[in-house]
Amino acid sequence: MTASGYDALKAEIARVYGTPAVVIDLDKVDANIARLQAACDAAGVANRPHIKTHKSPELARLQVEAGARGITCQKLGEAEVMADGGIDDILISYNILGEQKLGRLGALQRRVRMIVAADNPVTIAGLPQAAEIAGRDLEVVVECDTGRKRAGVETPGEAVELAKQIAGSKGLRFAGFLMYPPEDGWERTQIFLDTANAGLRDAGLEAGIVSTGGSPNIPNMGKLKGATEHRSGTSIFNDRMQVAAGVASLDDCALTVYATVVSRAGAERGILDSGSKTLTSDKGNLDGHGYILEYPAARIAQFAEEHGFLDLSASNDRPVVGEVVRVVPNHVCVVVNMVDRLVTVRGDKLIGELPVAARGMLG
Amino acid sequence: MTASGYDALKAEIARVYGTPAVVIDLDKVDANIARLQAACDAAGVANRPHIKTHKSPELARLQVEAGARGITCQKLGEAEVMADGGIDDILISYNILGEQKLGRLGALQRRVRMIVAADNPVTIAGLPQAAEIAGRDLEVVVECDTGRKRAGVETPGEAVELAKQIAGSKGLRFAGFLMYPPEDGWERTQIFLDTANAGLRDAGLEAGIVSTGGSPNIPNMGKLKGATEHRSGTSIFNDRMQVAAGVASLDDCALTVYATVVSRAGAERGILDSGSKTLTSDKGNLDGHGYILEYPAARIAQFAEEHGFLDLSASNDRPVVGEVVRVVPNHVCVVVNMVDRLVTVRGDKLIGELPVAARGMLG
Repeated sequence: MTASGYDALKAEIARVYGTPAVVIDLDKVDANIARLQAACDAAGVANRPHIKTHKSPELARLQVEAGARGITCQKLGEAEVMADGGIDDILISYNILGEQKLGRLGALQRRVRMIVAADNPVTIAGLPQAAEIAGRDLEVVVECDTGRKRAGVETPGEAVELAKQIAGSKGLRFAGFLMYPPEDGWERTQIFLDTANAGLRDAGLEAGIVSTGGSPNIPNMGKLKGATEHRSGTSIFNDRMQVAAGVASLDDCALTVYATVVSRAGAERGILDSGSKTLTSDKGNLDGHGYILEYPAARIAQFAEEHGFLDLSASNDRPVVGEVVRVVPNHVCVVVNMVDRLVTVRGDKLIGELPVAARGMLG
Repeated sequence: MTASGYDALKAEIARVYGTPAVVIDLDKVDANIARLQAACDAAGVANRPHIKTHKSPELARLQVEAGARGITCQKLGEAEVMADGGIDDILISYNILGEQKLGRLGALQRRVRMIVAADNPVTIAGLPQAAEIAGRDLEVVVECDTGRKRAGVETPGEAVELAKQIAGSKGLRFAGFLMYPPEDGWERTQIFLDTANAGLRDAGLEAGIVSTGGSPNIPNMGKLKGATEHRSGTSIFNDRMQVAAGVASLDDCALTVYATVVSRAGAERGILDSGSKTLTSDKGNLDGHGYILEYPAARIAQFAEEHGFLDLSASNDRPVVGEVVRVVPNHVCVVVNMVDRLVTVRGDKLIGELPVAARGMLG
């Protein structure tokens, strides 16, 4: 793409939508979807992309059409939107608790295949309520922690105990294990899985699903013997954190924020109209809050809610007031969550918009 | 309020809305609105609250009914929603640039009194387009930087030059100065203002409006001789940053996030169902990502998008899986921006919901 091509597109987006605008290049999205599917195929695991990144049934359908077995959601509200959008095989990688949510889960399970995660007896004790509403068995995977210290039981013994609780619960079916291995934790994860599987055998059970996760783990797919599925969210768009992790190039980043330089009150500084309410304060361990494609040496040093503070001291080229630039965000999943609509383009051509249907909800 | 009162309310909110739910106590909102108005009255400055915090025309109307002269917005989209909601005196404390926005600004100015800020000649050069569409003069204040290094001209001389440019532009009226003094920068701000005013007199101009800003600056109102208005956003809800700044107590915090403990995989740790997509990564300079009213010694140490990592090592009392807690966020303005609806309560009584009407928009 020539710079002048983007100049015309930037002017058009500013004219039609104004800035800040959150823009995805569907050509890059298509390529990213295909690349993930090919990587899963090559590793011999099913693809179950995590839709928390895009929250769009349209994009989920593209993922399924490309070969994904189903999708992953982090929230029940996301799963409801995806089921309404025609997705019929949904894993919620989260403990679902409370009567209200169990009722909604049951209603969903009546319509589509639902799999949910659990890492404790309280969650499992509630899930039969959902199965009863659904009128059929609910598949439950046990979430295992192999080093991230997030959710998930810490030992194979606990995992087997929960598997037995699931298998012994009316309306529930033990479906397997869910893991989110640290990028350097695959050996430990293998030992965990092998030990847990041995425990399952003693109990007459089997893990039909062994689900791993994470876009930075795409190069690690295939390392865990026994893995059956992988959950990757960010790779559909990619971002500065994925580039830093070495799993994507800047050119693979499908989402950019189109922002306007609104102030240049000092020679070495300026203000973008994109602050923490657009790019978010999710910084990762990176320097600055985004990468400006037109001014790679400019640094988004700090945020107010609608102000991105530009440090231009290291940049020989400096933008003028009114100029529109494209910013690759540090963490794309939270940026999508800030807006009701994404603007869609293909290369330098404006296509239209795409609702971020599964955002903004309570519960 | 007794703990048992909140137990019933927490159960009701979980049953009706699910968690995480972003909840405001309208009794506290009323008290906070009244307190800000009284402080402005006592300082002899008009109250022009910043609606970026709540993004709700209903709450803006309450502020105007309590005595506010008008409101402040940071985005044109916010101003449009507020005008639709019946607010007729709106300052946008931001450089408005580009044909699309100038057209929208002109359309707004046709309906209600609009004042906009500018800190550079490019912005001012565009504004007559809006005035022409409006068919009447547009008031413009010059944004001045007295130490925050955000937007705003850095010297009184530049401020006067821009005032002259405005006064000499067809359809524009120089309305005064907009400032956002650092909390410790009032002396410097006074010198800036006095010098700029002297320059204005030489040019035959006068600053009808001298607008100051910031909720942490509420105790400083009245310090700047010549100030006419103050813009305060956060004080309608307050948050942990306001408490840390010494301008509010925890009891003044009207907004809490109702969150469920979904995992307790280790003795000293747990997971809340509120992560960076609910409480946001805006941390301020505080320890941890929020204050849990029921477990003050628990620390929200880290976030994933839908996980709040609880460090319970310093807490003798520890929550169980399924328990609902109330979290005072670090920065309330960005939390409101994450959801389409706020749940409203009065004390321990559930009232209903309030749309966050001015959020999620592009541009």
